[in-house]
Amino acid sequence: MKLDFYYHNPTKIYFGKTALEHLPAELANYGDTVLLVYGKGSVKKSGLYDEITAVLQKAGKTVVELSGIKSNPTYTQMLEGARLVREHQVHLILAVGGGSVIDCAKGISLSAYCKGDPWERYWVNFEDVDNEIVPVGAVLTMAGTGSEMNGGSVITNEEKMLKNGRVYPPEVYPKFSILNPEYTYTVPKYQMVSGIFDTMSHLMEQYFSGTDDNTTDYLIEGVMRSLIHSARIALKNPEDYEARSNIMWCAAIGLNTVTGLAKEQDWEVHMIEHQLGAYTDCAHGAGLAAISIPYYKYISPYGLDKFVRFANNVWEIPTDTMTKEDAANAGIEKLTAFIEELGLPQTLRELGATEAMLPLIANSTVQGGGYKHMTADDILNVLKACY
Amino acid sequence: MKLDFYYHNPTKIYFGKTALEHLPAELANYGDTVLLVYGKGSVKKSGLYDEITAVLQKAGKTVVELSGIKSNPTYTQMLEGARLVREHQVHLILAVGGGSVIDCAKGISLSAYCKGDPWERYWVNFEDVDNEIVPVGAVLTMAGTGSEMNGGSVITNEEKMLKNGRVYPPEVYPKFSILNPEYTYTVPKYQMVSGIFDTMSHLMEQYFSGTDDNTTDYLIEGVMRSLIHSARIALKNPEDYEARSNIMWCAAIGLNTVTGLAKEQDWEVHMIEHQLGAYTDCAHGAGLAAISIPYYKYISPYGLDKFVRFANNVWEIPTDTMTKEDAANAGIEKLTAFIEELGLPQTLRELGATEAMLPLIANSTVQGGGYKHMTADDILNVLKACY
Repeated sequence: MKLDFYYHNPTKIYFGKTALEHLPAELANYGDTVLLVYGKGSVKKSGLYDEITAVLQKAGKTVVELSGIKSNPTYTQMLEGARLVREHQVHLILAVGGGSVIDCAKGISLSAYCKGDPWERYWVNFEDVDNEIVPVGAVLTMAGTGSEMNGGSVITNEEKMLKNGRVYPPEVYPKFSILNPEYTYTVPKYQMVSGIFDTMSHLMEQYFSGTDDNTTDYLIEGVMRSLIHSARIALKNPEDYEARSNIMWCAAIGLNTVTGLAKEQDWEVHMIEHQLGAYTDCAHGAGLAAISIPYYKYISPYGLDKFVRFANNVWEIPTDTMTKEDAANAGIEKLTAFIEELGLPQTLRELGATEAMLPLIANSTVQGGGYKHMTADDILNVLKACY
Repeated sequence: MKLDFYYHNPTKIYFGKTALEHLPAELANYGDTVLLVYGKGSVKKSGLYDEITAVLQKAGKTVVELSGIKSNPTYTQMLEGARLVREHQVHLILAVGGGSVIDCAKGISLSAYCKGDPWERYWVNFEDVDNEIVPVGAVLTMAGTGSEMNGGSVITNEEKMLKNGRVYPPEVYPKFSILNPEYTYTVPKYQMVSGIFDTMSHLMEQYFSGTDDNTTDYLIEGVMRSLIHSARIALKNPEDYEARSNIMWCAAIGLNTVTGLAKEQDWEVHMIEHQLGAYTDCAHGAGLAAISIPYYKYISPYGLDKFVRFANNVWEIPTDTMTKEDAANAGIEKLTAFIEELGLPQTLRELGATEAMLPLIANSTVQGGGYKHMTADDILNVLKACY
């Protein structure tokens, strides 16, 4: 743990089949008016909407609604939420849905009382948060983003064609999150595997950086192993409670900052995918899957030892008699096979990207990286390799 | 994650060489009067006492002191601290030292305004905490107990010859803990290895339970692997910063409740050691080491698959061609060898126990366990096997 760090994660987690029973006690901690934020209606189909509005009613809350949040939540929707918060003097924002809905709720929370233009201040210049933050609570229905236990809020500015965000400070984290793995049963299989790969990608973004000896890397390996193991079970039987509960918890701890402590981290796959998402509106995890293999092949020569460790400790490949290059490639091949098992796309074409989009995506992507600093040219090379 | 769980860990962690620089900002969150709790003077020798009192003075704090906290903190000392808190209307209890000092500080925090007899209410009957809790902050100088990031408070009642405690709710956790691995350099080697084994034992107590498929077990394996790896480096070079920082962080996350989520857990080795400690005042980690091998040999037939997994995933033993019994034993043998590497005792005799004490310890130990319920007879068998 060579780098100094600060860790503080105040989110309360209620996990399991009985998790929703704790909602009334949590609601009692906040004032009368609740902004209920949800997506395009799957919570209505599943009956969760009715269940939650009944709890809210019983608790005597006045409920304002913001629905139709998109899988890449837009700045317009977020501003509409912020307006509702101010107009109705909302005391609690309750997000019911996946990471997009929770990201949007946190964006609303940050923006409602922002002094100045929220986009410029918080999503472009990443300024310190200096305004009142409206508390957020979450009921999670899809595992993957980790938004339920961190300060992440990724928002798409449609007008500017930018998908930006970062992890905001602990004050922005959900005050509580309700995680019932059974809620994730209703998510279509494509969304399930997209979420699984999103978590895998978060873990790799944190893992593939640094040359130091770090407890965090061992933790990440443990979470990756559990995730891969449970993903294979869930692919065969999507209603295997143990598998789905492990996947749900891997997603939460995979991005609750504990798996990134004292790590430089990479995040370039996410930066590229954000721009891919801005142009194609593809599912986040699917975009990450397509970009990952060419990206890791591109950077592995710059972080060879870590890729060998990945092959050994995550995929259990005996690499003693291999060259480092072969060992690293063997690990990446296992990752490729895992993406195939999940049935996720390996080309941008399948995600709706056109060849003309590639330079636009490359040029608008935030440059950075872990073992290698990625320029716009490097990014274009990666995009071409998976087009 | 078959069992439902609640997770909430509000402790703020400042980790690294610059961690103490954050103390002034933390002090500003509390009132004027600070109770400074520390041990038998090693913090004075190291200069840390001077550094911290200078910070307190600069912050304009009135400082009351409670020093001489023993390695098994006593109920008498704890009550003295509680009296000081009431008498001086203390706003913050600042613990500077190892787990014993922090455990004592949390005990003081719980007891100062307790309605009724604190020992009976909180250390025997484990009643819900219903009184004001005085905030605790910590500056850690020895890694092992994990007390810096949980609600644990183990106190020895000398009069009753009992060492009791549990993990109290998040309100009792330190509000902040300052973890500078360099502070642990001054700890004698015997204390260092005792702390390392304490952490290893916490991880095993949580690991050896349950037959379900659980992300938590993968996490524990990761922490164990990092701990074993770094312990071996620190044994050769106690001032290897990376190794000592990993050991320090393993201790914190190894008992911050995240490595116990959705686990039944065991804790019988700790229960036995608590009574061993009450009779011999031995170093906690040393007592755990002596008890562990005969204990795990005794229970492994009842949780064979998990012991095979321990051999595979923690010690990297290829067990494919072995019987389950042989594989389990091979893992326990690696653990024995690790205790030898650490130079920790393997008999109770070395720790000052007499043969006459064994039935007294067995009969006063809280009965429980993971894979096997341990009766007083079972416990006596284990004690005899390591006498």
